[in-house]
Amino acid sequence: MIVNAGGVKCGQGNFIIIGGPCSVESETQIADIAEKVKAGGADMLRGGAFKPRTSPYDFQGKKEEGMEWLLEAKKKTGLPVVTEITGVEHLPLYDDVDVIQVGARNMQNFELLTELGNTRKTILLKRGMANTLRELLSSAEYILAGGNDNIILCERGIRTFETETRNTLDLAAVPVLKHMTELPVIVDPSHGTGHSYLVEPMALAAAACGADGLMIEVHSDPARALSDGQQAVTPDKFTEIVAKVRRVRAAV
Amino acid sequence: MIVNAGGVKCGQGNFIIIGGPCSVESETQIADIAEKVKAGGADMLRGGAFKPRTSPYDFQGKKEEGMEWLLEAKKKTGLPVVTEITGVEHLPLYDDVDVIQVGARNMQNFELLTELGNTRKTILLKRGMANTLRELLSSAEYILAGGNDNIILCERGIRTFETETRNTLDLAAVPVLKHMTELPVIVDPSHGTGHSYLVEPMALAAAACGADGLMIEVHSDPARALSDGQQAVTPDKFTEIVAKVRRVRAAV
Amino acid sequence: MIVNAGGVKCGQGNFIIIGGPCSVESETQIADIAEKVKAGGADMLRGGAFKPRTSPYDFQGKKEEGMEWLLEAKKKTGLPVVTEITGVEHLPLYDDVDVIQVGARNMQNFELLTELGNTRKTILLKRGMANTLRELLSSAEYILAGGNDNIILCERGIRTFETETRNTLDLAAVPVLKHMTELPVIVDPSHGTGHSYLVEPMALAAAACGADGLMIEVHSDPARALSDGQQAVTPDKFTEIVAKVRRVRAAV
Amino acid sequence: MIVNAGGVKCGQGNFIIIGGPCSVESETQIADIAEKVKAGGADMLRGGAFKPRTSPYDFQGKKEEGMEWLLEAKKKTGLPVVTEITGVEHLPLYDDVDVIQVGARNMQNFELLTELGNTRKTILLKRGMANTLRELLSSAEYILAGGNDNIILCERGIRTFETETRNTLDLAAVPVLKHMTELPVIVDPSHGTGHSYLVEPMALAAAACGADGLMIEVHSDPARALSDGQQAVTPDKFTEIVAKVRRVRAAV
Repeated sequence: MIVNAGGVKCGQGNFIIIGGPCSVESETQIADIAEKVKAGGADMLRGGAFKPRTSPYDFQGKKEEGMEWLLEAKKKTGLPVVTEITGVEHLPLYDDVDVIQVGARNMQNFELLTELGNTRKTILLKRGMANTLRELLSSAEYILAGGNDNIILCERGIRTFETETRNTLDLAAVPVLKHMTELPVIVDPSHGTGHSYLVEPMALAAAACGADGLMIEVHSDPARALSDGQQAVTPDKFTEIVAKVRRVRAAV
Repeated sequence: MIVNAGGVKCGQGNFIIIGGPCSVESETQIADIAEKVKAGGADMLRGGAFKPRTSPYDFQGKKEEGMEWLLEAKKKTGLPVVTEITGVEHLPLYDDVDVIQVGARNMQNFELLTELGNTRKTILLKRGMANTLRELLSSAEYILAGGNDNIILCERGIRTFETETRNTLDLAAVPVLKHMTELPVIVDPSHGTGHSYLVEPMALAAAACGADGLMIEVHSDPARALSDGQQAVTPDKFTEIVAKVRRVRAAV
Repeated sequence: MIVNAGGVKCGQGNFIIIGGPCSVESETQIADIAEKVKAGGADMLRGGAFKPRTSPYDFQGKKEEGMEWLLEAKKKTGLPVVTEITGVEHLPLYDDVDVIQVGARNMQNFELLTELGNTRKTILLKRGMANTLRELLSSAEYILAGGNDNIILCERGIRTFETETRNTLDLAAVPVLKHMTELPVIVDPSHGTGHSYLVEPMALAAAACGADGLMIEVHSDPARALSDGQQAVTPDKFTEIVAKVRRVRAAV
Repeated sequence: MIVNAGGVKCGQGNFIIIGGPCSVESETQIADIAEKVKAGGADMLRGGAFKPRTSPYDFQGKKEEGMEWLLEAKKKTGLPVVTEITGVEHLPLYDDVDVIQVGARNMQNFELLTELGNTRKTILLKRGMANTLRELLSSAEYILAGGNDNIILCERGIRTFETETRNTLDLAAVPVLKHMTELPVIVDPSHGTGHSYLVEPMALAAAACGADGLMIEVHSDPARALSDGQQAVTPDKFTEIVAKVRRVRAAV
């Protein structure tokens, strides 16, 4: 099955590369990164405006303002955009968003899934950090039940006892899901590992085992990122990863 | 700290016993169980009207209608009630609900937590199945940040590799949380184990290690329950458990 | 089923309390603690001479010498002793040991289990930190297959994502195992939590949910213990725990 | 660092492919598979003679006899061999074995590790199913402490809550370990997934993320294998995987 992601195809041999910052921080920040990931080979721009954060005292995202800056960057670069939704009530703000992301913490927010099933927007559904692949498909079923089959699944790591990585990236999820469903499956090696030095090897591994795309966090100055800087790669590194990913794709 | 749960005290030596079905199924079902758990020694009635279920094809709860039946049972028995909320938009329906439950799947639904922080309702916050105790406290912080400190924490089992039980009930969470916070902590041995034969021993263990209360699923005919019947105890068994729990409490 | 542990009965209502240090450190240390745990109500003395340690540079136990000191303490106090075995080749040293412990790391050391099945010694078999209860019983089966049914099972915590405790003590293991086997089941709240302040509440919880005994690490000067001091309780605290455990046992 | 595995180099760009059955079942079985994996591109032959099995009633391996058959196959094909050791006392049987495997269940059998540290044999050390990468390195340290640095590490999956796969193959272990140590790291996609259809994608992913080799279970008739048939690939499939792995290696 091929899913349309703002004019870009995902699935059935169509590989999608999404790049951008964890959070939209300012108008210039997102515009700058958008240009750079486009130049580096990205098919789509990511950037969070509404950020679900463990603590209420952490940076919560630039919200409505961030959304405007993101759409501005879309207009300038022509890149379609994906951004997370954290509550049903924000849905009207997503009209010009190409792909709506449901994050790991909301994978079983069934009210939200049901509402998204009533739209015809493309949904990027991330696996919850303690959820089985069957549960991921059951959550997709909430969206499908409303008649919306524009769904891309995303493996982003699960929670285990290992502490060297932020999560344990379960790459076998890719071929297992492809065995169970027609929906495309992409991989997020940034959240999946939590460390920038692990993004390239895990991106290549994802490409090798049959993923339909990648979502990679990119920041021009990772050390100063307002969220998750330790897992962001620079635009140069992103460009390098994209080139290598294309070589691995050609080989398999 | 003592939290007021519909006139019943919870915390600082005040032990609360909550009994009732997983789901409100009909007016007579909830009325019947309400009478029985009251007779058995319950301080509060539980019953789900909005049910977050893994699959969209499972029973989703009786919703508004179920809520009315639950409040009817409250009126008849005088028992305060606790019931789960699954979305911000349902909040107006909870005016006469004494304690609003945030389920495990919504422990990191920060929009919902923020909204509940703006009320002065008592919130029963359940630990997510893959969440650390620090994350549970960070979620409580979202409610506290709005000025609402009427919070009861609930350990209900975490997800591990063990398959003999539905979840692994992490009872050490009780003394650990009491070391970290003033908020009362109760235990749900029904979800925590998934099997009715394990409810009594785990309820006694929870009482022994210092929990401030218990939430136990009770059904008059567990084999015909519309949800989670295998973990429900009968009213007679509930009565027996309550008596034993009181003996253990007296001993410690 | 009742298992004989050096003259002390374990199982079927016979509750055994084992106390002593993680490691035998010196002749006077083990003699001193032996007297104190006996006075505090212990039925049996524990103390490790061969210590399986994660790093080769950690204290590895006093070995043969430690074993002699432990047996000396047995002679003086009359307390039967339990101590761990780490390799088949040490078996001749265990003639006067009453109960041989197979530690968590050796739960699936099948060569060792088979050899112990050929003895008629009482074996304390600890659950591995990533092993299911079915696997624990399969390991017991290796001992039983040799004709030795003098086996006591021990829950000591499993490995999960939670980091506030050293392991997650899975107390539901007690009633689940009692459902599956006749073998007695005891609990180790010291390794199960990793923190001395959690030993008492978890010991009481274990007693409440039907365990047949407890193994508690006791040290006269926990801060100077050569291993695992942070989870050891003092002799005074041990005495207090034993008294409370007896009250809980009387209540259930 | 380059480790010598029976004349084959492993590490620093030298990629080793190990193929063969889970268990040596008969003289003809291992001879037959040895020829086929050699033809398919294997650098080394695997086959278990001493099998650590969860239950004592499962097939336990052909032991001494199996070892002879394996060494016979080595002689005929010229392929070096790797086979597991389950107890110190069997060491004399391993004189002509090129690489001695320490299985996941024995990763913390410190007596065995210490003894292997006193040899100069090449050791294939598999990660335990609940062990962190730091613990894997601490176990390697037991071998190194004896002066033996001929060690190859092996990621073979860890235990998590996911049940679609036998284990969760933690491929990030490869770049993380390479960040922490000079020792070569190979991957076992057979145990790592438990299903033959997942062996190819995970083998390719391992090659893409920088592994120094692969260990793949191959059986001429997987449905009749005496152990782990569901995760074995046929010799034809093995040949195909090897070819694809070489293409991926060339691309990265």
